Amino acid sequence: MNAQFDPEQGSAIRLPQPYLLFLADTVEPGFAKTAFGLRDWAGDKCVGEFSIGATVTTGLPHMTPAQAYAAGARALVIGVANSGGVLAPNWVASLVEALEAGLDIVSGMHVRLSDIPQLADAAARLDRRLIDIRVPPAGLPVGTGRKRSGKRILTVGTDCALGKKYTALALASAIAERGIPADFRATGQTGIMIAGGGMPMDAVVSDFEAGAAEILSPDAADDHWDVVEGQGSLFHPAYAAVSLGLLHGSQPDVIVVCHEPGRDEMLGTAGYKTPSIEETIELNLMLGRRTNPNIRCGGISMNTSKLDADEAARVMAAESERLGLPVADPIRGGEAFAALVENCLK
Amino acid sequence: MNAQFDPEQGSAIRLPQPYLLFLADTVEPGFAKTAFGLRDWAGDKCVGEFSIGATVTTGLPHMTPAQAYAAGARALVIGVANSGGVLAPNWVASLVEALEAGLDIVSGMHVRLSDIPQLADAAARLDRRLIDIRVPPAGLPVGTGRKRSGKRILTVGTDCALGKKYTALALASAIAERGIPADFRATGQTGIMIAGGGMPMDAVVSDFEAGAAEILSPDAADDHWDVVEGQGSLFHPAYAAVSLGLLHGSQPDVIVVCHEPGRDEMLGTAGYKTPSIEETIELNLMLGRRTNPNIRCGGISMNTSKLDADEAARVMAAESERLGLPVADPIRGGEAFAALVENCLK
Repeated sequence: MNAQFDPEQGSAIRLPQPYLLFLADTVEPGFAKTAFGLRDWAGDKCVGEFSIGATVTTGLPHMTPAQAYAAGARALVIGVANSGGVLAPNWVASLVEALEAGLDIVSGMHVRLSDIPQLADAAARLDRRLIDIRVPPAGLPVGTGRKRSGKRILTVGTDCALGKKYTALALASAIAERGIPADFRATGQTGIMIAGGGMPMDAVVSDFEAGAAEILSPDAADDHWDVVEGQGSLFHPAYAAVSLGLLHGSQPDVIVVCHEPGRDEMLGTAGYKTPSIEETIELNLMLGRRTNPNIRCGGISMNTSKLDADEAARVMAAESERLGLPVADPIRGGEAFAALVENCLK
Repeated sequence: MNAQFDPEQGSAIRLPQPYLLFLADTVEPGFAKTAFGLRDWAGDKCVGEFSIGATVTTGLPHMTPAQAYAAGARALVIGVANSGGVLAPNWVASLVEALEAGLDIVSGMHVRLSDIPQLADAAARLDRRLIDIRVPPAGLPVGTGRKRSGKRILTVGTDCALGKKYTALALASAIAERGIPADFRATGQTGIMIAGGGMPMDAVVSDFEAGAAEILSPDAADDHWDVVEGQGSLFHPAYAAVSLGLLHGSQPDVIVVCHEPGRDEMLGTAGYKTPSIEETIELNLMLGRRTNPNIRCGGISMNTSKLDADEAARVMAAESERLGLPVADPIRGGEAFAALVENCLK
């Protein structure tokens, strides 16, 4: 079974909530990144954690699946990975226990839950759902390019894996804090778990890529902002197709360019240089105009995690001066980030 | 079972040949386009046709599957469609007969052959293959952008469905006729059947789109030309992701822009204007430079099927003068097309 369980054709994924976070028997904190990310970004949607001998903890209350169900939980999320992305055999009995307690199971692992016979059998018997968020919904439409109501921000990048998800989450929070209606629209696995729904854009068949992005951010009120998590980079020789389908289908009013100073070569490529911020702005605006002629750049989100505070401030100020745009690190926040948010909304 | 039956990881589809063309009980010539296309473009790979009451004919010899196998055939190709793209129940016995005669079955229909229990059972029992060419090979890699040896032409378009496949076939034939080694590289269903292999680019998961194009046209001799069938258009709000992944992964040395004069609005869109030829050249060269800095435009392939001969000649001459590039209709051929071929190869 794939992640679609909405009867209408071509909806985005929607996850049952709140969650019980499954830590299994994990002893290595690096393998529990998903659980920590959910605690940090979706803590109000997590009722507790379920361990079968783990030494790592999220700090949330320990619960059995039955206790979690009684506390309101509706899904167990596999919050850990192990090397190889497989599901360890000794986890299966605990997952069956969760199904029996009334919880659906949500996984972002490579292995499909329904390929594990004991889980498939238990889910069928109990009428519970096994939700693999790497699997796109069935029935995705092709794009039409029709202009939708509401406002949209898309985070784009000079490369992969430099903060597009984090930036989108931070922008959506900051907009909502200003009393303006806003939704984070997730396009990757971690984001989908945090948001409780979304579209795994990199797993969508290319013919439906723009169409999938169109249904991810549907018509909305005129004053509503969707903040769409970007993927890849238009300059990446492997992933530009994902980025362009997402750009066309999102039809953003505003892009925010994410960049990491010092990253000179693009991830996983045969020596491809990272484009400049200006090139990235220009190409995204040029291609984005095809579906939204009013697209503009709201500013730059800079991942300064490898710089100390003084150096980060110096680099961001210099770049802001040079580009004539707000430049901020959403992790550092502050006035610079507030200026970036304001410039997106203006 | 999907179309991959090559043991190495991530190869393109390869079809068993030659073919027996299955016409079933078709009475409407429009439903036999695949069979006619194979007769016209891959006649040397077709040993005959197999009818169970069809009134349409390709003109090839009538044969039973057993006779076709004896004549060298190794696959039965379903050469007809019916409305809905389904496989009619009364075809199944004939397809089982083909499997029993030693033929694999090749289909481009929406329905999967292996979803029909009688076919799945017979194929398993006889160790024969059911090949759905809408299904991409398993194990596709992500792209790397590594420059490959050999030369490549990619046909690109101002829109969908205006002659990119036909142009690529005609260019590959014309290059081979000049004694220069050349291969047509198919990216759509009809092309894959004609070529006996290829990659169904619109069915590939977007994360692997460029990687799939990379393995479609592998390293080759320095004087060898791959002519890659284009898909979609960079300007199409639904399909630009397919086009960009194919452009990046093909890393063409030469593009040929396909255009149909008089087509003002893009197929299937909410009123999107067709871009100009100049815009199409410029955007393809700009984005294509990312993986091949030496990319250039070899000329324009014009679909003049709606014009009479005089009008077509006048339009093509005027466009050639205006653009400073060869402009030809490969269906009309002649000196104009020879000039286009020469300009691609120069």
